Amino acid sequence: MPQTHNPTLDLACELIARPSVTPEDAGCLELIAGRLQALGFACERIDTGGVSNLWARRGQTGPVLCFAGHTDVVPAGPLDAWKTPPYEPTIVDGVLFGRGAADMKSSLAAFVTAIERFVASNPDHAGSIALLLTSDEEGIATHGTVKVVEALAARGERLDYCVVGEPTSVKTLGDMIKNGRRGSLSGTLRVKGKQGHVAYPHLARNPIHAFAPALAELAAIEWDQGNEFFPPTTWQVSNIHAGTGANNVIPGVCEVLFNFRFGSVSSADSLKARTLEVLDRHGLDYELDWHLSGKPFITGRGKLVGALSAAIRETLGLETELSTTGGTSDGRFIADICAEVVEFGPVNASIHQVNECIDAAAIEPLSVVYERTLRALLAA
Amino acid sequence: MPQTHNPTLDLACELIARPSVTPEDAGCLELIAGRLQALGFACERIDTGGVSNLWARRGQTGPVLCFAGHTDVVPAGPLDAWKTPPYEPTIVDGVLFGRGAADMKSSLAAFVTAIERFVASNPDHAGSIALLLTSDEEGIATHGTVKVVEALAARGERLDYCVVGEPTSVKTLGDMIKNGRRGSLSGTLRVKGKQGHVAYPHLARNPIHAFAPALAELAAIEWDQGNEFFPPTTWQVSNIHAGTGANNVIPGVCEVLFNFRFGSVSSADSLKARTLEVLDRHGLDYELDWHLSGKPFITGRGKLVGALSAAIRETLGLETELSTTGGTSDGRFIADICAEVVEFGPVNASIHQVNECIDAAAIEPLSVVYERTLRALLAA
Repeated sequence: MPQTHNPTLDLACELIARPSVTPEDAGCLELIAGRLQALGFACERIDTGGVSNLWARRGQTGPVLCFAGHTDVVPAGPLDAWKTPPYEPTIVDGVLFGRGAADMKSSLAAFVTAIERFVASNPDHAGSIALLLTSDEEGIATHGTVKVVEALAARGERLDYCVVGEPTSVKTLGDMIKNGRRGSLSGTLRVKGKQGHVAYPHLARNPIHAFAPALAELAAIEWDQGNEFFPPTTWQVSNIHAGTGANNVIPGVCEVLFNFRFGSVSSADSLKARTLEVLDRHGLDYELDWHLSGKPFITGRGKLVGALSAAIRETLGLETELSTTGGTSDGRFIADICAEVVEFGPVNASIHQVNECIDAAAIEPLSVVYERTLRALLAA
Repeated sequence: MPQTHNPTLDLACELIARPSVTPEDAGCLELIAGRLQALGFACERIDTGGVSNLWARRGQTGPVLCFAGHTDVVPAGPLDAWKTPPYEPTIVDGVLFGRGAADMKSSLAAFVTAIERFVASNPDHAGSIALLLTSDEEGIATHGTVKVVEALAARGERLDYCVVGEPTSVKTLGDMIKNGRRGSLSGTLRVKGKQGHVAYPHLARNPIHAFAPALAELAAIEWDQGNEFFPPTTWQVSNIHAGTGANNVIPGVCEVLFNFRFGSVSSADSLKARTLEVLDRHGLDYELDWHLSGKPFITGRGKLVGALSAAIRETLGLETELSTTGGTSDGRFIADICAEVVEFGPVNASIHQVNECIDAAAIEPLSVVYERTLRALLAA
């Protein structure tokens, strides 16, 4: 392991060396908790369902600024394709390679060292500093952040600000933060017809034909036009299946999977109602099961966005862009107990790929951005 | 085996006792050829590809009246479900049970005895009597009737009239003849898109969405209105498949199987052209493979329909109905070398099922209908 004499980079390397593939934590939380306890944090493990979760807090009062993230990483993939071993952090020409280097062990290290410096200079800071970490963000995420949020909600604990350390930068550190995420609503549709022989279509009812005009209409709908925070809502069919291969049989059922990605203009309920209206107007006989995997959340230009944007400007000399694009993140869960949630972390170009990496010189500035955010919101 | 002292019923039982599951002939053709040779027929075996075919002809001149059919049967299916052993012809309460009783060994027996009686009374009949029999009608039918037709065509031999002995009667013997069949044209369509993540639909191209309006349009088209012989042409999608099960992936390809059943108003070429026009007008990127499994054929109210209808009226006392419904038959091949092709045989209610059967009392009248048709067209 490289010894860099840079505390944030060193900690990032220590974390990368722990092969914490979902849902394994591989000792990452223990390492972090040890550092936090030395600063006076109360550290609580909320492990459940084979997932390791940490809730750490320093301070009893509000406002509460929480840093959130995950210790787990996606699998390394084909080892042959890695230039360096994925769990041996290696710096080559100023670039740190290793699984989790960008998503998101460098962010975790930056959280810790930012807090260490801030607490050293502000031992009696205002409000509370918190960390919410899990080892199941990359997996099905049913026993990770959502469980900690439920536990906090059950005892009435609320957060004021949350910075999720996901890698949100696109080309250079600081060029983008996510101040919200779209919601994701899925449907499993079974359009029912009546099986028969293609030579006698009058004795059958073809569910593909019955569904076709509704499908064409749904695919053409402008669900909303988006707003200042969200792009327009999209509807996509990911799967359609009917027929058993025989070319002389009209199938009895057509099965369809579809997914909405939606912003705050539409709601899950409004999208469901509009979908049902189309299906019913076309006189379809169907079954439809819904799954809401994430509600949209949005954090406007309030104190947190202001503090983080200013910290980026001061540290990196650029105006960050606010965005709500991309997939879902644990921010969707935290938004239930926290008014202002943003995501900010390193460049995401290499995540989930072989040879995942981060510019080593970007790690310390990331820590400084987090520290300046702390300072802006919690300095005594 | 029952001894009925009825020559047609006895021959039907002899044929049913031969387990000639496609493409096996099990000696049926030899039995029939022996009876025909005794009448002065020239019998020619045109066996190919494991299939047994017989071409038999009595006479050198026209007109040629041909009886056509098949000795093969579909598999017996679950033996437990048969009340009597499928290859042991058994008469119970006046009903003859056995695989092939209706489809179509009784017709073959009726051909032979009809010809025997006719030749006995008309040794110097006009024109020629012929039989075209195969052991592969129920299978893929690539080495059966089509090969005999090709051989006849190659040497310039043409037929004037052909009676195919398929079981065309619906409720009672004689109530329906088929004076044509619809064509069958299939398409295998691959609509190509661009795979991507459902969260980024602007970076992908969903082939399901692209195809939807074309599908809706194709499903709604009135291809033709039919004519006096054929019902309107129909288009049916039998299979549609896209997606691998994952609900967050926009698939790259949508695969579709469809089938036209068409009469003589439309042609395979016109249907292809209209399909392509729709696909192209919707700007689709696609591959499409066509398979024409049968052209339509039609025999109007000419000499053969007149002779057969009269024979049914005289023998059975009813006006037969002309129809072109149902699947394809070997008539589609014979129509290439024969101007007038009709199908007529026993009640088809039990065909391809367990306990296949025929009213034993209907077998001799079937032979009489065939004989009267011979007499009307070829009596000296």
